[in-house]
Amino acid sequence: MARSLLVTLLTDFGTGDTFVGVMKGVLYARAPELRAAIDLTHAVPPQDVELGAQHLAEAWSYFPAGTVHLAVVDPGVGSARLPLVAEHAGHFFVGPDNGLFSRVLEPGDRVHQLVGARLALRPPSRTFHGRDLFAPAAAALASGMDPAELGPPLVDWVRLPSPEPQPRGPGRLVGHVRRLDHFGNLISTLERRHLEALAGHPGARFRVRVGDLSLPLADTYASAAPGAPLALVNASDAVEIAVRDGNAALVLGLGRGEPVELELVP
Amino acid sequence: MARSLLVTLLTDFGTGDTFVGVMKGVLYARAPELRAAIDLTHAVPPQDVELGAQHLAEAWSYFPAGTVHLAVVDPGVGSARLPLVAEHAGHFFVGPDNGLFSRVLEPGDRVHQLVGARLALRPPSRTFHGRDLFAPAAAALASGMDPAELGPPLVDWVRLPSPEPQPRGPGRLVGHVRRLDHFGNLISTLERRHLEALAGHPGARFRVRVGDLSLPLADTYASAAPGAPLALVNASDAVEIAVRDGNAALVLGLGRGEPVELELVP
Amino acid sequence: MARSLLVTLLTDFGTGDTFVGVMKGVLYARAPELRAAIDLTHAVPPQDVELGAQHLAEAWSYFPAGTVHLAVVDPGVGSARLPLVAEHAGHFFVGPDNGLFSRVLEPGDRVHQLVGARLALRPPSRTFHGRDLFAPAAAALASGMDPAELGPPLVDWVRLPSPEPQPRGPGRLVGHVRRLDHFGNLISTLERRHLEALAGHPGARFRVRVGDLSLPLADTYASAAPGAPLALVNASDAVEIAVRDGNAALVLGLGRGEPVELELVP
Repeated sequence: MARSLLVTLLTDFGTGDTFVGVMKGVLYARAPELRAAIDLTHAVPPQDVELGAQHLAEAWSYFPAGTVHLAVVDPGVGSARLPLVAEHAGHFFVGPDNGLFSRVLEPGDRVHQLVGARLALRPPSRTFHGRDLFAPAAAALASGMDPAELGPPLVDWVRLPSPEPQPRGPGRLVGHVRRLDHFGNLISTLERRHLEALAGHPGARFRVRVGDLSLPLADTYASAAPGAPLALVNASDAVEIAVRDGNAALVLGLGRGEPVELELVP
Repeated sequence: MARSLLVTLLTDFGTGDTFVGVMKGVLYARAPELRAAIDLTHAVPPQDVELGAQHLAEAWSYFPAGTVHLAVVDPGVGSARLPLVAEHAGHFFVGPDNGLFSRVLEPGDRVHQLVGARLALRPPSRTFHGRDLFAPAAAALASGMDPAELGPPLVDWVRLPSPEPQPRGPGRLVGHVRRLDHFGNLISTLERRHLEALAGHPGARFRVRVGDLSLPLADTYASAAPGAPLALVNASDAVEIAVRDGNAALVLGLGRGEPVELELVP
Repeated sequence: MARSLLVTLLTDFGTGDTFVGVMKGVLYARAPELRAAIDLTHAVPPQDVELGAQHLAEAWSYFPAGTVHLAVVDPGVGSARLPLVAEHAGHFFVGPDNGLFSRVLEPGDRVHQLVGARLALRPPSRTFHGRDLFAPAAAALASGMDPAELGPPLVDWVRLPSPEPQPRGPGRLVGHVRRLDHFGNLISTLERRHLEALAGHPGARFRVRVGDLSLPLADTYASAAPGAPLALVNASDAVEIAVRDGNAALVLGLGRGEPVELELVP
């Protein structure tokens, strides 16, 4: 398997301490030929595995094949939760087996328990596996090691429950706001595939209901007047509610968990 | 033209989502020989093209010749605004044609419309040109492509209005606070060139008036007592009002847009 | 001395301006063979030299030998404070001589005053030595220059006072909360070496008192119930007070400077 010599990092560590820098130090110390260590984000809310899983699922595929994705959102560090390494579609993944990778991994993917002794590591600290276990494993994978060399197969890796939208009568699906982005856009659990399944043919029209609003599904932010709300399918194929040149979460007073309804226009 | 194989990124995307990481993924996927993707800042306030333009203008020239500067502050994404690529002083620039580059580009620079088809790109999403159009173009430029290969010349690229200070009687100029920096320093539109024009000779002395204060123009932060206000010409050649070891914006209660007067001391 | 061609950066500059990006531009312009410029953190509170020194001391050793650590927390920029370069344990350090490196450097280390003229630099700005003096010096060290080439030995480099915990009767030591981390954990001045000195043998048990709490010293976050407080020796060998899956600073209402007592359980 070709390696890209790239490692991405996604954590809930923030950037106010040196946690992330220290992990990069370990990566470069153990993989001297590393080309780059690239931040996906370190602003996952503390211990929010579900949100970390969403971010990782949206980002990994834009990197070249052979990239190693190191993700640590790990409320169970030091407990019995297992560490894992995995391969999916020619990319590699390292981190805790707590569901963080379950929006990426699929049945049939190679998933292995990570055994630190295979890397001749000393027993890791009980509180910072990112530095002591996951970064060394990511460096090893980046350098060409195979996941199977790092431990036995892991069959029952943890899956997060899936937030599948529910039908509400013919031509209608109800999901919810899954997260907010930096601009205050409301990202829902409704996706392009739901539109296609609901319509059964291309070119159908939809409306999106959220809070007191009923919005036609538009193509672009520029389709609304400045300050006006709109709904569109965003660049990650999710139905999103935005305010043109504004912050939808603030302007509309809506947040995570808010119901969002998708309706096929007859 | 020599290439440095470096790309800088400046956006209003923040670092809480994976937008920036995803653009770096595209850069490395399309320019496998890339040396580094370097953040200038991603904290431009959402859609604040003017502030993005200021930051870019202060930073680009410190990079080696042949660097590609990818900047995306793009309230008009998906509308009729054009994408551009340009060359200035041996550096390359990619992003929306909305004035973001107009504090860098000068008459005579090579500016071209960016035509995605020249890169064999699929039609980009309507909401994330940073990923689908600008990052691929930046990768192509970093790899040695010429701006002229990416589209036809663009003559009437967008210029932002210039915040030129105004004379107020002999030996006096009035500008305003253009932005605050991380330390709370007030950065004005008055620049070293205005001092030189006002004095007509080196060694002249100046006073700076802002709010209720009248301050001699000093050389260094250390010239004031701890907690005291001061004015100086900063490392980017702008007149700046600071508080020694403190936050001028908070201490003085002043912000963006506040008038600042420069006076030649006879 | 082998060079790793890596430079780390630690500042109080934040990431909202382009200060850090500009320093990286200078690094790449002056050290074209540089492999990576890696952020430790830029969120040191403005002018908080002590906190910067702590962060640097926790992070530097995880990088490969030959790495250059560029640190700038510099309230005295433009004053008489000296710039320094130093070598410790095969790593290199560059920045202001104000104590920032005094949690790393030891007697016998090679410490030199940094003389800009040795790098053929123009006189630096009076306000941004990070860009005009320290980054060029870091680039020179990364490229193989020796600290001794950059200036004369500096013997009386600045040491910060050491926050040594104080005994309070037999088997008891009193320190304080030295900083909070991103998760709200309270990091104290009590360290693993204090435990060992207090006990005189391995396997001893301890209690930690802070605010109204008296906590057994645990091994891992997972040893407490969700929402419950705990104390442990963290991955940087410091006694830390945490709340399982929560923010100790917020939940306990405690902050920097709070007394923390360590007691040997007989």
